[in-house]
Order: sequence, then structure tokens, then C-alpha cells
Amino acid sequence: MKTLRDIGEDALIERLVRLVPRDPDPAAGPGDDCAVIDDGGDFLQLLKTDALVEHVHFLSATPARAVGWKAAARVVSDFAAMGGCPRHFLVTLALAPETSVAWVEDLYRGIGDCLEKFGGYLAGGETTGVPTGSASVISIAATGRVIRAHLVRRSTAHAGNVLLVTSRLGGSIHAKHLAFTPRLHETNWLVANFKPTAMMDLSDGIAKDLPRLAAASGCGFVIDETSLPITAGCNAAQALGDGEDYEILFTLDAELVADLLASWPFPELPLTRIGELVRIGEGDSLTGGWEHFRGGG
Amino acid sequence: MKTLRDIGEDALIERLVRLVPRDPDPAAGPGDDCAVIDDGGDFLQLLKTDALVEHVHFLSATPARAVGWKAAARVVSDFAAMGGCPRHFLVTLALAPETSVAWVEDLYRGIGDCLEKFGGYLAGGETTGVPTGSASVISIAATGRVIRAHLVRRSTAHAGNVLLVTSRLGGSIHAKHLAFTPRLHETNWLVANFKPTAMMDLSDGIAKDLPRLAAASGCGFVIDETSLPITAGCNAAQALGDGEDYEILFTLDAELVADLLASWPFPELPLTRIGELVRIGEGDSLTGGWEHFRGGG
Repeated sequence: MKTLRDIGEDALIERLVRLVPRDPDPAAGPGDDCAVIDDGGDFLQLLKTDALVEHVHFLSATPARAVGWKAAARVVSDFAAMGGCPRHFLVTLALAPETSVAWVEDLYRGIGDCLEKFGGYLAGGETTGVPTGSASVISIAATGRVIRAHLVRRSTAHAGNVLLVTSRLGGSIHAKHLAFTPRLHETNWLVANFKPTAMMDLSDGIAKDLPRLAAASGCGFVIDETSLPITAGCNAAQALGDGEDYEILFTLDAELVADLLASWPFPELPLTRIGELVRIGEGDSLTGGWEHFRGGG
Repeated sequence: MKTLRDIGEDALIERLVRLVPRDPDPAAGPGDDCAVIDDGGDFLQLLKTDALVEHVHFLSATPARAVGWKAAARVVSDFAAMGGCPRHFLVTLALAPETSVAWVEDLYRGIGDCLEKFGGYLAGGETTGVPTGSASVISIAATGRVIRAHLVRRSTAHAGNVLLVTSRLGGSIHAKHLAFTPRLHETNWLVANFKPTAMMDLSDGIAKDLPRLAAASGCGFVIDETSLPITAGCNAAQALGDGEDYEILFTLDAELVADLLASWPFPELPLTRIGELVRIGEGDSLTGGWEHFRGGG
């Protein structure tokens, strides 16, 4: 019997989406950081759901306010990765009956911290019990929106486009994963000024996420590992494989890169050119990154 | 230390919603089966999230296809309860790595069965692991919509309105809770022909849900227990308190009731007058119904 441990997340999703009705609108297609709903008008709606599991994404001793921040910030990061903004949040909690009310209130305060900083409202929620001893699960679904002309997908890059990444990669597990800043302001500036040809946020490690972006665009890739922006105290393997960086990977027409680097208005957030897309079947391959049912690999 | 077991779900929600930014639009107010988003135009958007937990809402041996149906149908029932229809679904699964791929595929088939019958598309999802031994959690968030003039809330009934309920109540745990039919077609007909003054679906038992509707409308209630439509083999206490009926409770102007009962076009689904709303502070009280952190009470 094949189990979830035996099959990768991407392969699983591919099998599952065939079993349910899907929107015939090609705008809604799977494979991006968010689903895109086109009802006409100047804005497209974005939809996203995400979950944090106790013992997997946070520890029982992790301050609840940090867990709440992380749960909301991961969703904000996905809207950022498509050039959009968050709007309405739905919070689903499955918690043990022994959970203290104070812990849940702190979790909500952390969600509130993130919504106050990046916009968005709580629209609803559901709180239910899990059996004693079971891991708590925090699931956040949200709607967002993006100006139609600003939408950036993973699948629209071309061979020859340059690969760029924000900030530094690796070692997120030591603290950053609980307190990261979604790159919402930066990507909103990018799509209005130097619209990327493709974009995504780095949640499972660039070793796993870059091949996804390249494949979605029908390209290969080459990266210059010596150019990778690495977190102080980490090595290249960690920068490639640790995951939970929540930085932004994007591609840009080569002739715009010098101009972008000269114009970039966020001096505290370095932007690094790490490689380029090439024709499919050419270029590098990467192994490693986070597997949701197996852990790091 | 106060725990979730010590505090009711309604009291918890009231404390939590104060801790996060909320939409200043009064249309979005909490306390209904769905959140309502008003972006102008002929339709209002509805948002809903809901979760099923292993050992609580289904057993490990429950056929996965039935679990998938139930997870999706609960959300469809909430859209029905406001006079709307489902549109886009997000499915979040937190599952043990030992879960078989075949089980997850059957779960998705069950979701697909429900979407094919009642409309709606899968828009996205997230699948993540829980530690071995932890309960699986299935969380479904969805968008829906309702024609602006058809929206029905819980909070808009008046003293003197008649209370009506669909089908029969009680004993859902013996099978119905896994295979119930959301009353989408019936409520869509109702809002177009005899618009209720208030409406909700019965998920926690009428003993818990009717006081919620009455309180939201600033009313009391009287019910005639001898008129309760009771499932064969059940008693009145079960009809009041079992929960998971997923029938529709609604209120109607008294002068329309005879006309509605004569026009009701769903002969297989009886409609029963069970009482009426009265002025707040008058009328009956009910105890019992499902408590999410304590079980039946």
C-alpha cells in the first residue's frame, strides 16, 4: 500500500486535482502560490490556504503570538509572491481541550499583529477540538487581490531571463521562521516598476522551489552557487535546502536587471542575481529541500 | 488557568474577535453561518471555513469518500443557510505520513461528489503531515455568493415570526451525519419565493442553535415540543440535542406561513411549524446541544 511518505507532495497534488471539478477558466489553473479567480474588472481575486502543525511547524513551547504571526505571514507571503495584497482571513483552529484560553488569545494577537502591518481583516473562523495528545493544527485561508496588470505567475518566464532573490537564504530554523517579514511592500513595488516574468516565495528551499518555477515555465536553469546570498553562519547546502526562508525568487528580462539593481529602493534588503533560466533539458539540477511527509531531504 | 474545556465556543469567539482587525463594513459582521463581503454589484461574496477531526467528526474506519462528502457538504449547507451558492473550495489536509494515498484519493472523490451535485470548483489546497498518532484534520474553506436581495441572516427576525424547520431531527450519528443532503435547492427556492426573516443550518442541535438565532435577532422563543419533527426511533431530547442534523431552521412572517406550506414544492422534505419568536426576556429556554470542547451536554 502506497502511503503519503512514499509519494512526493507535488505528485500527490497532481493525482488529487483530477478527482474533483475544476474551474474551466484557465486563470484559475493550479501550480501557483495562490489560486486566481477572474470575475472581470480591474482586480483579480487570489485565494490561499495554509496550515501549521504542532511539532512540525512550531513546538509546544513556541510563544503563541509568534505562531499566530507565522501562520498569517505565510499567507501574506503567498499573496506578495503574485504581486497582490491580502484582504479577508478565515482562521480554523483544531486544538486540544487542555489548551489554555490565554494561549489562543495570544495566537490571535499574533495574527492581528500581522494583519495590522500588512492589511487584511479577520472575516471568520472555526474552533474545534482534537483528542488529548493530538497535535494542534492552525489553518488559515484568505482572500487577496491583485491589480490585473500586476499579476505574476510562476509559469510565464522565458529562457534567458535572469534569476534574482531577496535577502539571504538558509538557517531560518534558528529563529527567522517564526518572525520573518513577508516581502509584500517589495513585491508590490516590483510589479509596478520592474514587473518580473515569474515569481514565487521560497518556502521549501530554493533546491525544491527553483526547479518548480523553472518547470512551470517550461525551462531549465543554471545557478552560480558562489553567488548565493547565504545567511551568516550557514553554508551553501543550508542556503539551498533549509526551507522556510520566505524570501522572493523572481525572474526578469536580462536587459532590465542593471536598471532594477540601480533603482532598488529597499537598501536593507539586498537583491542578488543568482543565475538564469535556460532551455528545458539544459542547465543544472538540484536535490534537497523540504518534503512535507518526509522532512528535509 | 482557564482552558478551552472551561469556556463555551461562543464565549471564546467573542473574546478572540476583539484581538484582530475587523472589516469596518457592517455587512461583514460575525455571528452568521458565513462571512459576507460587499464589493458592490448584484452579488455579495460569502466566505466559510470548517474542519473535520478524526475521532471527533469521523472515525478512522469511516470510508474516506463519506468523510470527503461530509467535509464539503457542511460548507455547502452554510452557504445554503444564507440563501447563497458555493463557488471555490480550498482543501487543507493535515494527515499522518502513514495515511495511504488511496485513502486521500477517496477523500477527494467524496469532495468531488458533493461539488458535482451542488456546484463549486476546487481552487487549491495544502497537504501537510501530522506526527504519527495524531488525529487527522480536514479543513475546507470556500467562497460562495448570494444575490444581494436574497441574503438572509440570523439577526433579522422579529417577535411574532413563525419558526419552521425542514425534515426530521435527531439521531444523525447513526448514519445521516456522513451522508446528509445540504438543503441548497430548498433554501434557494425559499429566498426567491418566501424570503425568510432569518435562517441558519442546524449543526449543533436545535437546543443550542435556536437560542443563537433568537439572541442574534434580539428575541426570545417559544417552541411546541409536541410539534417537533422527530426522526423515527428517536425521542424529543435527541431531536433537540443530538446535533449534526444539517436541516434548516428559519423564521417567516406569520401571515405567509399558510401560503408557504401550500406552495412548498419539495414533497419528500416535510416542513414543520415548531413555534415562534417572542419578545426578548419572554418565552422558553433550552439546554443541551453539542459543545465543541466538551461534547454533548
